[in-house]
Amino acid sequence: MAYELYYWGEIEGRGEFVRLALEEAGTPYVDVAREKGTGALMALWRSPEVTTPSFAPPILVHGKRVIGQTANILLYLGARHDLAPKAEAQRLWTNQIQLTIADFVTEVHDVHHPVGAAFYYEDQKREAKRRAKWFRDERLGQFLGWFETILDRNPRGAKFLVGARLSYADLSLFQMVAGLRYAFPKAMARVETAGPGVIALHDRVAARPRIRAYLDSPRRIPLNEQGIFRHYPELDG
Amino acid sequence: MAYELYYWGEIEGRGEFVRLALEEAGTPYVDVAREKGTGALMALWRSPEVTTPSFAPPILVHGKRVIGQTANILLYLGARHDLAPKAEAQRLWTNQIQLTIADFVTEVHDVHHPVGAAFYYEDQKREAKRRAKWFRDERLGQFLGWFETILDRNPRGAKFLVGARLSYADLSLFQMVAGLRYAFPKAMARVETAGPGVIALHDRVAARPRIRAYLDSPRRIPLNEQGIFRHYPELDG
Repeated sequence: MAYELYYWGEIEGRGEFVRLALEEAGTPYVDVAREKGTGALMALWRSPEVTTPSFAPPILVHGKRVIGQTANILLYLGARHDLAPKAEAQRLWTNQIQLTIADFVTEVHDVHHPVGAAFYYEDQKREAKRRAKWFRDERLGQFLGWFETILDRNPRGAKFLVGARLSYADLSLFQMVAGLRYAFPKAMARVETAGPGVIALHDRVAARPRIRAYLDSPRRIPLNEQGIFRHYPELDG
Repeated sequence: MAYELYYWGEIEGRGEFVRLALEEAGTPYVDVAREKGTGALMALWRSPEVTTPSFAPPILVHGKRVIGQTANILLYLGARHDLAPKAEAQRLWTNQIQLTIADFVTEVHDVHHPVGAAFYYEDQKREAKRRAKWFRDERLGQFLGWFETILDRNPRGAKFLVGARLSYADLSLFQMVAGLRYAFPKAMARVETAGPGVIALHDRVAARPRIRAYLDSPRRIPLNEQGIFRHYPELDG
């Protein structure tokens, strides 16, 4: 039974972390809004029949299951497609890393929308500039430094975030780096030298055959200024 | 072996969701920073020996395990103390609800710190007022409405969020309501009428013997203006 991913069709956004896992798994899936329109997404999202409704997309439907929250979807897919370790301690560690990525994603979003998603960027540009400076000068390095540290401390080596094999956390870290490079090319160029392990992992993930094929396909939505990672030159530097 | 909770000793914060689970489980635990000082928290948090270091507290130590991220800690405790269903679908649903509470908690924090945690509240008061209005007028009702909806749709009745028994998600929802009432008494008084199921669940959790004893004990830190839920009258209304 093919998976159905319900997520906005115009952006990578949080749905991209799920898309990458599905692509690496090599499993069939329908990217519903892209293939059937936003109406199909809204219909499932707002359906009164769903007993486990999500506050927001992404939503994964698999048979009778309707699962929301990115990290939760990845917990489900990781167990099914060998994209996470089986042992409980390692499985929780993978989940912990993913949740930290989720926090990081929220912070990246809030750089361009500090006052709230309800207001246009143009109406919070001044606040965004102030927040962006803090993000570039402190938070970006703190987050990347944390990932570099956990790679360094991995008892099985710095090739993957958890143990000696690829997990969905590696795919998500790839996406973070790709997004940050798009949104903050200048700031990233500055901090990347302090995170050689993170960058090497990004490159390793990008070179995996299924991921490479996906990135080169029309299924990969180009990053743009509607998503989480937005390139506003005035926020970089 | 007793659990050790590493979290700031002066606030409820995100650590409170873990404290409530430990209290309801009736299991011994050490609230390390409160009993041994913040230095003990910093020492574990910054220890280079930990192979699963956390980006931020709360951190739960259990034997050799060092586990971070609130929802991840609750996933671990839930399975061990019968505070979550055993079946995979229900376990994931509990996790999904907890992750949505985590998002909600971040939004509550961002009401008083929209430009960033690095700046004093006094230096972002104008922005906080703007964000607070959006939070009160839209987000608060959206979130509480979602919880009311999932209670209504629970096939086992509206007594608990998941199935027919208490889970850690119920404890966390109790904490959200308690915190929101403290921070936004006026706004909450307005929206509570639209969420009778949520309020009834809050009351039911508060009346559980172990939770009641905890709330009445000195272990429960009073809500204050250092934590996530802050009562700034200018942000309520």
